[in-house]
Amino acid sequence: MAIHEECGVFGIYDMTGRNVAGDIYCALTALQHRGQESAGISVCDTHGPMGNISTKKGMGLVSEVFTKETIEGQKGNLGVGHVRYSTTGGSRVENAQPIAMNYIKGSLALVHNGNIMNAAQLKENQMYRGQAHYTSSDTEILAYEIISERTKCGCIEDAVKLASQRLRGGYACLIISPRKLIGVRDPYGIKPLIMGKRGDSYMLASESAAIVSSGGEVIRDIKPGEIITVTKDGVKSDHIPLDVKPAHCVFEYIYFARVDSVIDGVSVYSSRVRAGELLAKYSSAEADLVIGVPDSGLAAAKGYADESGIPFALAFHKNSYVGRSFIKPTDSERSDAVRMKLSVTPGIVAGKRVVLIDDSIVRGTTMRKIVAMLREAGATEVHVRVSSPPFLYPCYYGTDVPATGQLIAAEHSVEEVCKNIGADSLAYLRLEDLSEVTFGLPVGSACLDSNCPVS
Amino acid sequence: MAIHEECGVFGIYDMTGRNVAGDIYCALTALQHRGQESAGISVCDTHGPMGNISTKKGMGLVSEVFTKETIEGQKGNLGVGHVRYSTTGGSRVENAQPIAMNYIKGSLALVHNGNIMNAAQLKENQMYRGQAHYTSSDTEILAYEIISERTKCGCIEDAVKLASQRLRGGYACLIISPRKLIGVRDPYGIKPLIMGKRGDSYMLASESAAIVSSGGEVIRDIKPGEIITVTKDGVKSDHIPLDVKPAHCVFEYIYFARVDSVIDGVSVYSSRVRAGELLAKYSSAEADLVIGVPDSGLAAAKGYADESGIPFALAFHKNSYVGRSFIKPTDSERSDAVRMKLSVTPGIVAGKRVVLIDDSIVRGTTMRKIVAMLREAGATEVHVRVSSPPFLYPCYYGTDVPATGQLIAAEHSVEEVCKNIGADSLAYLRLEDLSEVTFGLPVGSACLDSNCPVS
Amino acid sequence: MAIHEECGVFGIYDMTGRNVAGDIYCALTALQHRGQESAGISVCDTHGPMGNISTKKGMGLVSEVFTKETIEGQKGNLGVGHVRYSTTGGSRVENAQPIAMNYIKGSLALVHNGNIMNAAQLKENQMYRGQAHYTSSDTEILAYEIISERTKCGCIEDAVKLASQRLRGGYACLIISPRKLIGVRDPYGIKPLIMGKRGDSYMLASESAAIVSSGGEVIRDIKPGEIITVTKDGVKSDHIPLDVKPAHCVFEYIYFARVDSVIDGVSVYSSRVRAGELLAKYSSAEADLVIGVPDSGLAAAKGYADESGIPFALAFHKNSYVGRSFIKPTDSERSDAVRMKLSVTPGIVAGKRVVLIDDSIVRGTTMRKIVAMLREAGATEVHVRVSSPPFLYPCYYGTDVPATGQLIAAEHSVEEVCKNIGADSLAYLRLEDLSEVTFGLPVGSACLDSNCPVS
Amino acid sequence: MAIHEECGVFGIYDMTGRNVAGDIYCALTALQHRGQESAGISVCDTHGPMGNISTKKGMGLVSEVFTKETIEGQKGNLGVGHVRYSTTGGSRVENAQPIAMNYIKGSLALVHNGNIMNAAQLKENQMYRGQAHYTSSDTEILAYEIISERTKCGCIEDAVKLASQRLRGGYACLIISPRKLIGVRDPYGIKPLIMGKRGDSYMLASESAAIVSSGGEVIRDIKPGEIITVTKDGVKSDHIPLDVKPAHCVFEYIYFARVDSVIDGVSVYSSRVRAGELLAKYSSAEADLVIGVPDSGLAAAKGYADESGIPFALAFHKNSYVGRSFIKPTDSERSDAVRMKLSVTPGIVAGKRVVLIDDSIVRGTTMRKIVAMLREAGATEVHVRVSSPPFLYPCYYGTDVPATGQLIAAEHSVEEVCKNIGADSLAYLRLEDLSEVTFGLPVGSACLDSNCPVS
Repeated sequence: MAIHEECGVFGIYDMTGRNVAGDIYCALTALQHRGQESAGISVCDTHGPMGNISTKKGMGLVSEVFTKETIEGQKGNLGVGHVRYSTTGGSRVENAQPIAMNYIKGSLALVHNGNIMNAAQLKENQMYRGQAHYTSSDTEILAYEIISERTKCGCIEDAVKLASQRLRGGYACLIISPRKLIGVRDPYGIKPLIMGKRGDSYMLASESAAIVSSGGEVIRDIKPGEIITVTKDGVKSDHIPLDVKPAHCVFEYIYFARVDSVIDGVSVYSSRVRAGELLAKYSSAEADLVIGVPDSGLAAAKGYADESGIPFALAFHKNSYVGRSFIKPTDSERSDAVRMKLSVTPGIVAGKRVVLIDDSIVRGTTMRKIVAMLREAGATEVHVRVSSPPFLYPCYYGTDVPATGQLIAAEHSVEEVCKNIGADSLAYLRLEDLSEVTFGLPVGSACLDSNCPVS
Repeated sequence: MAIHEECGVFGIYDMTGRNVAGDIYCALTALQHRGQESAGISVCDTHGPMGNISTKKGMGLVSEVFTKETIEGQKGNLGVGHVRYSTTGGSRVENAQPIAMNYIKGSLALVHNGNIMNAAQLKENQMYRGQAHYTSSDTEILAYEIISERTKCGCIEDAVKLASQRLRGGYACLIISPRKLIGVRDPYGIKPLIMGKRGDSYMLASESAAIVSSGGEVIRDIKPGEIITVTKDGVKSDHIPLDVKPAHCVFEYIYFARVDSVIDGVSVYSSRVRAGELLAKYSSAEADLVIGVPDSGLAAAKGYADESGIPFALAFHKNSYVGRSFIKPTDSERSDAVRMKLSVTPGIVAGKRVVLIDDSIVRGTTMRKIVAMLREAGATEVHVRVSSPPFLYPCYYGTDVPATGQLIAAEHSVEEVCKNIGADSLAYLRLEDLSEVTFGLPVGSACLDSNCPVS
Repeated sequence: MAIHEECGVFGIYDMTGRNVAGDIYCALTALQHRGQESAGISVCDTHGPMGNISTKKGMGLVSEVFTKETIEGQKGNLGVGHVRYSTTGGSRVENAQPIAMNYIKGSLALVHNGNIMNAAQLKENQMYRGQAHYTSSDTEILAYEIISERTKCGCIEDAVKLASQRLRGGYACLIISPRKLIGVRDPYGIKPLIMGKRGDSYMLASESAAIVSSGGEVIRDIKPGEIITVTKDGVKSDHIPLDVKPAHCVFEYIYFARVDSVIDGVSVYSSRVRAGELLAKYSSAEADLVIGVPDSGLAAAKGYADESGIPFALAFHKNSYVGRSFIKPTDSERSDAVRMKLSVTPGIVAGKRVVLIDDSIVRGTTMRKIVAMLREAGATEVHVRVSSPPFLYPCYYGTDVPATGQLIAAEHSVEEVCKNIGADSLAYLRLEDLSEVTFGLPVGSACLDSNCPVS
Repeated sequence: MAIHEECGVFGIYDMTGRNVAGDIYCALTALQHRGQESAGISVCDTHGPMGNISTKKGMGLVSEVFTKETIEGQKGNLGVGHVRYSTTGGSRVENAQPIAMNYIKGSLALVHNGNIMNAAQLKENQMYRGQAHYTSSDTEILAYEIISERTKCGCIEDAVKLASQRLRGGYACLIISPRKLIGVRDPYGIKPLIMGKRGDSYMLASESAAIVSSGGEVIRDIKPGEIITVTKDGVKSDHIPLDVKPAHCVFEYIYFARVDSVIDGVSVYSSRVRAGELLAKYSSAEADLVIGVPDSGLAAAKGYADESGIPFALAFHKNSYVGRSFIKPTDSERSDAVRMKLSVTPGIVAGKRVVLIDDSIVRGTTMRKIVAMLREAGATEVHVRVSSPPFLYPCYYGTDVPATGQLIAAEHSVEEVCKNIGADSLAYLRLEDLSEVTFGLPVGSACLDSNCPVS
């Protein structure tokens, strides 16, 4: 029950000329968990006149922004789509992606997931060049870096390569430039990007689940720093000439990604199960049942149960209708959003000592309510186990976490947090076990230990 | 993954005069799984002028029909709400509930869940009396029966009692008549209705989950044939003078209801676990894993696993964004709605013989796809176990199931269905075990054996 | 610049089976001046199954309620439409027309223009019969009277005849009953109704302009008390057996109707010119120019100019975009709606003594602003002439005029009103000249002299 | 009844800090006749943080784009607004104005009426500088020219001055740059721009009517090539250092502008009356009545009548509800849009020889229908007089007229056109009389004689 979300990107090039807006719609629906604030699609026809990119975007879920009519009205066999995460400020339709621009070499549409740390400085340089900004998003800054390079080099993929060398941060970015689909992943590999294929269509997506649920098959992950260019002649690979050590974002495994995705060769499901096993191994508890907070806590609970031998149970019902658009009526002050979203199935935990697994504790308020609900339902002891180490610092790579002052773990000892949430015991995944969760894949963890790979 | 749905009803009377539209909004969100086609709320102020009932209803989810503004604009401490199930025909806003009418004694608003079998005959009589119909719904017919009696008797609850004696079918009905909240349940108790309390508010709801997730506590189930009247002076009970044997709808337990509800004293969760246990007992299979189709198949899978000793696994990811408003773009014919909604987490079933539990098989097409997806994911054997007996006949009590010709079990032998869905073996819950699933509570099962209690 | 409006009705039966919703849309647009609050269309197919009436209605202008898609989705060769006038209260979509009902003999849709004086009493009787009301409109009461009779007689037109004998008031009513188009006009002929033809289509409309601008030709006015029935066999006429003296509403001529309509044989344009001539004859003024407040004051100004020999001028610009949906922003308190809607063309009245003609003075506020604007534009004298007698009493026949306390003429002498509006002189059309305005056609004038024909 | 339209612009700076969005809303409503395709408003608070410009724009009428809520949500005492004309292509919300940008010195919002002839060349240079374009409108090109200069000079008004020297074409442009309101008019003075004042607010508008109907008073016209800057310290004037002969657009007088506007010191009303007088003088006809096609033909008809001594009559009713959103239903092929919009009042022209005045003939189809309607109404002769010279060439200054091939006058002799429209005689305003129509003000007339002032 994590409080923050990522963006999701998807791109597709159909070699046979078939329209792809419908495919993008489906893929964005598969990536909807990564962002519910806005959605957008740009398409163009690689056989039509240059520069005709059709873009449609809006606030809300994919199913709210698009209708059968608008999807079928977007004609073209090359396209990109985006779902955007929800932040407290800056929630404006102008900031929705894709960003589509006309520039010296024609048109371009761009989507990205991530955060450019030196965006302000790049923007200032752009403004000195006379470039104007319509949005407050990094995406537009990214696009300007690319088109500025494009005036000086021979092709868009080279412009992407040159521009990328100036970018600092974690990003996965897709570009249509009207005859090509380009994907680029930051040199650390912080944000995920994966390639798939279905018939004559090449696909690039934030997660494998978007490819698989569209009926495609995964080819491979894009490598950190890799630039992939899909044209009518096939797929070409290049890389950003920066020599850095990979540092994948561990939170993709802990809660961003869908449990059925495989990222950089590591199954998200296995990673979560492993986190549960490690918790059981190093933070055992005397208990009768192991339960997980749906959805991301379930696999870790399964791992904990299997490792510890304590039975696994499905103790919660999650109401999937309590979403982004749920309003809390003023007159209904006694209703609680956590209680509306999550409820404890009667009879399961009554008289039982339970181990409760969740993916994180941010401010502590939600966990306090969940523990209270379990006690109301008769649980005699509640031992909270968290499948990530404590959040100590905000993330610098594009993940919208609260500022340090709002991170309960940054301000309080484990004992204090335990007391605050009303648990009988509390333990986190140990920082030293983090690399085991990704089965050896190198991960970034600035939010945990302030060791920032991007400097 | 059942294909049909029920309606949900909720009523509330706040003795202190507090506005209740927000509470109804929350409760309907808790009951949203019972119907996503339309939603509506009627409220009135028991201290205001008689007959001012404010009604708002529309097509779509509760969150689509209501905004903070409309909720806060509906003033009143007495109200009812409704979510409507989705049928292929008759999907018009006129048929949305509540039905609000002005009649000889003032105003009345009515919601109901169920089906009046003799509606056509009642309607004809009403028309002979000069009563006009604006909708094609049973609800309006119900309302007319009540107001017709009201001209001949002293109070609305007596009119309800008189009218109910002429009704045939299964129903749970709530009425606001501007100083009273009335609930009535058909004499068989086919449709559920339960009473709760929170502070000074009395609540009546289709399911206990609506009461609990609103922060209230359950008082008791309304008895079959009982008429409950809540006024400023408290709660009064009467009953329809018809002597019939109770016949609760078993499908509430099998899939309509939320897993965290308790209906007529029986926990839905326990009932599903029991169905799984019975399947394990009488339809065992040699297998390595037990998996359930979310959400309603999970508890039965747990029961099967516990009874059989075969390990339980969470093999599916369900995309909760693939809802009622998901459109299948024409250009995306290769995308499949089942695959969009449900996916198999990689690595879990590979090389395994699995027992797959679902709540029902209606037409067989969905199950065929699920079995195929499991095989693609590497399952070596798929043994399908269904936690309800085969559907043989349509339901006459208000459940929208396909006509006999579309029920695969009505037309084909179990072996033929097994082959059709591509499973290695197939077994259903045995008809004779049905009463065990409800732990002895008498259930109707006309859809299974054509023994119709209402004749 | 009158402040109140009427409803408009239109019905059409196409003998060849062609769809008529588009024709109704056009005709309602031609009648839009009679009401801008709501619009609605009901159609049915006389060759299809009985009782399938398709109704669409909503708040706003015809062009706001209907789209090309909704019009083309309403299939049928028989239909009625309605535009509703704007009142301060009771503005709810439920009260929009047509009212469509299912009753003992099938379906029926009804529209009407007018006011049933004994509606409350009829409604009470209906309620005693168990008939429920969904709206607060007279239309529903009218419909119930008809369907109640229909259970006792052989055909719908006889039911209309029987019901009409109980109605008191002024009305023009159209009914589709699925194989027939019926029109009925009250025995006094207070509200207008006229018949036309285009090819194989028969039309009934509030005004001839709706027929002519649809490319049809006028056949004749429906007579006071006449019941017209159009079936596949042609047109049949009957009449309500009440013997009363006709009393047409003079305000149709003075301002309700379009200037290009001819009602009961009298041209609206000629009537207005005549009113101007009579004002010139009996209320002359020393002046240099005659100007009229657009639109309805223009023809009277022309009459005044021609009769008096004083030159006619077009001194006003009317902004037709300042309509029903114009909002007056709070922050713009210095902007005035009258000034936004009407402006004085510079240079025309400067240094001139002007005769200003308007159709009525209700509260006096608008006229005061217009006089002030003329003085700002340099007019040296402003002599106001009103082309109707002073309003003294509210209308009882369905015209929404302010209550007596708000009628400036009912509370103040002509001298006081003249001073109040800031004019140099003021004169009204004389009550004794009213019959000349309609060239001898008998008119009702209860609003002027309290002689109510309907008693 | 001209077929094309212009844009309208309005700007306001309130010195006292009062919000101005409501004023802009009213002024745009007053300018709505200049464009009905889209509307937009940008405001900022001169006392707030720099660079916070709030922009709202959309497709449709001012009343469709804005609500009371959106107007009141736009806070700020400095703002500009725009209504856009309707073209067949390019009708996209992206092209709606204002264009708001962030650039090196903060924010800027810009609106303009007109056409930049060298836009393509300017755009190419911008692209070489790395500037991207989000729209296909001239407005964005204009904005980029200004911000590019702004990086090189000391203030925004100097940047406007430098940029304007590179612009070719006719334009009236308003800019808010967050502490200043700037207005600039092209050196030829092709497009109108006028300054007014109301209390402590300075206003700049396309037409005086927008100032007057907002309760303000006109100060003076902005001179050709003048740059006006309004700051908290008052009004400053500068001019573009280009020495060209003024060439005002005569079509503002003939039909673009409101009849109650005064442009460059010449009353639009007087100009139209004068055109009628000149037609009477040089193209007389034997006739009984003079009638004008509303609205722009009325004043010319008055002039013709007064000069010729033939009586003036109001023969047409114009239905103001047949607007931009009127749809012509497919099933209603016999209904005609001209007939819906315009009708002949019965009895006026019957048996009469009429002179019919309209402002222009473009394709001839509308005039042919009007002549036919007059004959149906009994006119014995129809003498058409056009208050402008024949259109021979498309306009290069921003007026959207049809291409040469569609201009009937460019392809056919006057005799052929007369026959084509079915008139008894036809005459146009003589080219040599054009300067008399503006009482000596120099006008451009490239559309009439191909003498293009801008070369």
